[in-house]
Amino acid sequence: MRLAILGAGDVGRSVADLAGEYGHEVVALADSTSAAVDPDGIPVEAALERKAGDEAIGPADPEDVLETEYDVLIEATPTTLDDAEPGFSHVRRALEADRHAVLANKGPVAERYEELRALEADSAGSIRFEATVGGAIPVLSTIEDCTPQSVTAVRGVLNGTANFILTRMAAEGLDYEHVLAEAQDLGVAEADPTFDVDGTDAALKFVILANVLADGGFSLADATVEGIQSIPGSALDLAAEDGRTIRLIGEATRDGVRVGPRLIPENGALAVTGTRNIVQIETRNAGSLHSSGRGAGGPETATAVLSDVGRLPPL
Amino acid sequence: MRLAILGAGDVGRSVADLAGEYGHEVVALADSTSAAVDPDGIPVEAALERKAGDEAIGPADPEDVLETEYDVLIEATPTTLDDAEPGFSHVRRALEADRHAVLANKGPVAERYEELRALEADSAGSIRFEATVGGAIPVLSTIEDCTPQSVTAVRGVLNGTANFILTRMAAEGLDYEHVLAEAQDLGVAEADPTFDVDGTDAALKFVILANVLADGGFSLADATVEGIQSIPGSALDLAAEDGRTIRLIGEATRDGVRVGPRLIPENGALAVTGTRNIVQIETRNAGSLHSSGRGAGGPETATAVLSDVGRLPPL
Repeated sequence: MRLAILGAGDVGRSVADLAGEYGHEVVALADSTSAAVDPDGIPVEAALERKAGDEAIGPADPEDVLETEYDVLIEATPTTLDDAEPGFSHVRRALEADRHAVLANKGPVAERYEELRALEADSAGSIRFEATVGGAIPVLSTIEDCTPQSVTAVRGVLNGTANFILTRMAAEGLDYEHVLAEAQDLGVAEADPTFDVDGTDAALKFVILANVLADGGFSLADATVEGIQSIPGSALDLAAEDGRTIRLIGEATRDGVRVGPRLIPENGALAVTGTRNIVQIETRNAGSLHSSGRGAGGPETATAVLSDVGRLPPL
Repeated sequence: MRLAILGAGDVGRSVADLAGEYGHEVVALADSTSAAVDPDGIPVEAALERKAGDEAIGPADPEDVLETEYDVLIEATPTTLDDAEPGFSHVRRALEADRHAVLANKGPVAERYEELRALEADSAGSIRFEATVGGAIPVLSTIEDCTPQSVTAVRGVLNGTANFILTRMAAEGLDYEHVLAEAQDLGVAEADPTFDVDGTDAALKFVILANVLADGGFSLADATVEGIQSIPGSALDLAAEDGRTIRLIGEATRDGVRVGPRLIPENGALAVTGTRNIVQIETRNAGSLHSSGRGAGGPETATAVLSDVGRLPPL
């Protein structure tokens, strides 16, 4: 398939880099100010090198991307809340042009799910969004294959930054501020880590899961969210005395979404360490399925995007 | 899709029972001596009741099944080795008739993989076999989505009976014979548990995985296999003093298949308890994906069969 990639952050660049391995062609790659566009395929390596050197990706304008010949729009621009723009409009234009859209951008799927599905119903194209939940871990495709109706709940750890911080606090007896600084030095937490530590990032993912289970009806405003910023080191010490630890756990059911710090058994399945993520999918007929893996990262998230591309029907 | 189910053990019966939930119709169900066949759909509940009452499933002959109008053959007859008959011929006839085949029977996929793929290439139908590896856990579809070429190895626990026995030996300090008897009482081990405890069942699954990774080339004879029958209780006690335990672990790479008891960290990911299974899929771009869940059981395995049906292209 011919991929038009909007967004040249870690994910967009990795999708461009790996597309060939999966048998696909990159016909466009754009960041917010520049673009490389070629219906016969852009020179990916050269474009990535220019981006790495802080130069323009190519001679084109980002506006040119959606005007070119492509099969799948890869929406990998930064997640935005509320109206989820400009990501939502990018996807809308792709569907209105009867093209597919694969999202790594959580905004449109968390905040305007029913509108997306309505646009999809009127389009020859389809939307897929595995990359919005749990990076490399096949969460949404697992739910899709066993059918959403047979899933009763999804629970787990879906923010690696928060999980890393809590893992380190527990392991070293350090306090939150100290470990946050360490995480930022390592590149595990961003300069502005707010969405990771206040639970918003995790909440967006569980909102997306609730929308899949219930076929819509949820947005970030519906989630009950508590972050990890106020957890004292002493809370983790106390927990350890009891064979437990604290992790930022989320849960999505058809009734709602909750994200917050929870006491869990120290050696239990949910106590993944470092930046790993885990989901527990509770099913009617098959008990509890657990999937864990790397929840973030350019190549990791790109594999989810390219898995989705592989599952799209031909146009 | 219209399903023709060969085999009325736990899996065949559960597929018949759940097919309607997934939007499919059962046009045939057969055990070794009787069958219910109706191109407009058999009365599933009545057929299952007759089977439960040890009566003939229906008035038809098992030979009638492959002659009726169906879209997907569900091959759920008992696994046989070497020539993998009669399962192999059932699948061959479906493919030669340009129908799909979904297998829960490991024999054909482990022992005659290349022949199956050759028949599939000449057919309008496709084969899928998620149910042959890891019950409800989506192992093969995960490998398919991230592409087999990007998977370097698959490791894990794929036999619940052996895992249950070792879990109980470690937990209670009991010896093998004692726990095997307990497992048989609970229905976790069969009257003849040989294939579970000597590693054959696990080896078949890892052979199937190696065939998927390497696109053929392996059969059971190629696997290096050691079972759990000779493990003394004292070995588990010694392991525990070192923070370890013993589990029947298998590994498949493009170079080969090994199954045998291994010392593993007591609280590590591979140390699933009871009858649960776990696979670790090592990938080039996305690190290590772990999936665990119920590896066996009628409804559990049926969900894998029905997931496969959902992923078949229209005929």
